[in-house]
Amino acid sequence: MQALIDRILADAEILPGNIIKVGGFLNHQYNTDLLREMGKEVARLYANEGVTKIVTIEASGIAFAAAVALEMNVPFVFAKKHSTANLGGEVYSATVHSYTHNKDYNIIIPKAYLSQNDCVLILDDFLAKGAAARGLIEIIKASGAKLAGVCTQIEKGFQGGGDELRDLGIRVDALALVESMSEGSITFRQD
Amino acid sequence: MQALIDRILADAEILPGNIIKVGGFLNHQYNTDLLREMGKEVARLYANEGVTKIVTIEASGIAFAAAVALEMNVPFVFAKKHSTANLGGEVYSATVHSYTHNKDYNIIIPKAYLSQNDCVLILDDFLAKGAAARGLIEIIKASGAKLAGVCTQIEKGFQGGGDELRDLGIRVDALALVESMSEGSITFRQD
Repeated sequence: MQALIDRILADAEILPGNIIKVGGFLNHQYNTDLLREMGKEVARLYANEGVTKIVTIEASGIAFAAAVALEMNVPFVFAKKHSTANLGGEVYSATVHSYTHNKDYNIIIPKAYLSQNDCVLILDDFLAKGAAARGLIEIIKASGAKLAGVCTQIEKGFQGGGDELRDLGIRVDALALVESMSEGSITFRQD
Repeated sequence: MQALIDRILADAEILPGNIIKVGGFLNHQYNTDLLREMGKEVARLYANEGVTKIVTIEASGIAFAAAVALEMNVPFVFAKKHSTANLGGEVYSATVHSYTHNKDYNIIIPKAYLSQNDCVLILDDFLAKGAAARGLIEIIKASGAKLAGVCTQIEKGFQGGGDELRDLGIRVDALALVESMSEGSITFRQD
């Protein structure tokens, strides 16, 4: 999506350790025009997939999910992060490894919010090694719902998580797909 | 807002300890039509206040803030929760007491996201004793920005936080204002 790529080129900070700082417009403070356009673009990409529900993960995926859900007119739910694995039988849960913080955490979604009749679109702000997406996919599989695909605002293609999911036959879309980056420089994968 | 009150009466669970469970449609899983209508209603209420920025708090305020921001066409930012108070000089911070979890936590917003030229609307899902709202107001005052008001999806009027803020001359709106509740029963304050 060219508007997002242009904004990243103009305003993102590229830092050592493959970090793209976009908090000023994308996942902490939000530019509303950009958020609306992203919502419209994802709705266009998944218009014919029969999506009945959007699933994301707290906290930085929620605004993106809200914008897309408002365009697609389907409900959305966010997975909550929990430090304990002892969560009872009322929730679906999965363990996710955070490479940023180098620790595991659990994500949960109440069982009441997913059913085998759902067709789910997973949304998140970033896809790098794909740990969060795999956790959400595990939960969706456990619920018996169909998976329409995984769509992310920014994919760090060089970290491989997106291509691993594609190799499993899962549809993965990125509104901006970073092919490579080094300090002060960033290159996008072209369609 | 009658549509929200009707939905609460139809689908909320009223539990002991003054708990209103609305996660199925309002602050964990979201009904998109209701979210859109709430966005429009807040935009109508604050149409003439010169709002330049919306501020909320993670995680359950973010979707509401996104929906309102998309209607009002202003940027929004969410305060992040931090367990440590040692946060450096780049952020505004405040300490908030959680009555639900009986502990203090810190909320932070990067200084770059607020300025004295801003007129800020605070949004959140619930207002009860008002601790989170007071923390956000403290941050906005520190930034020098003007405060347009505090608008919440559900205010628990009988817990007093909203009226304390009104007594200070702060504009406080609730899309549904609960006057009293007991197990299985709920009464709303009428305009």
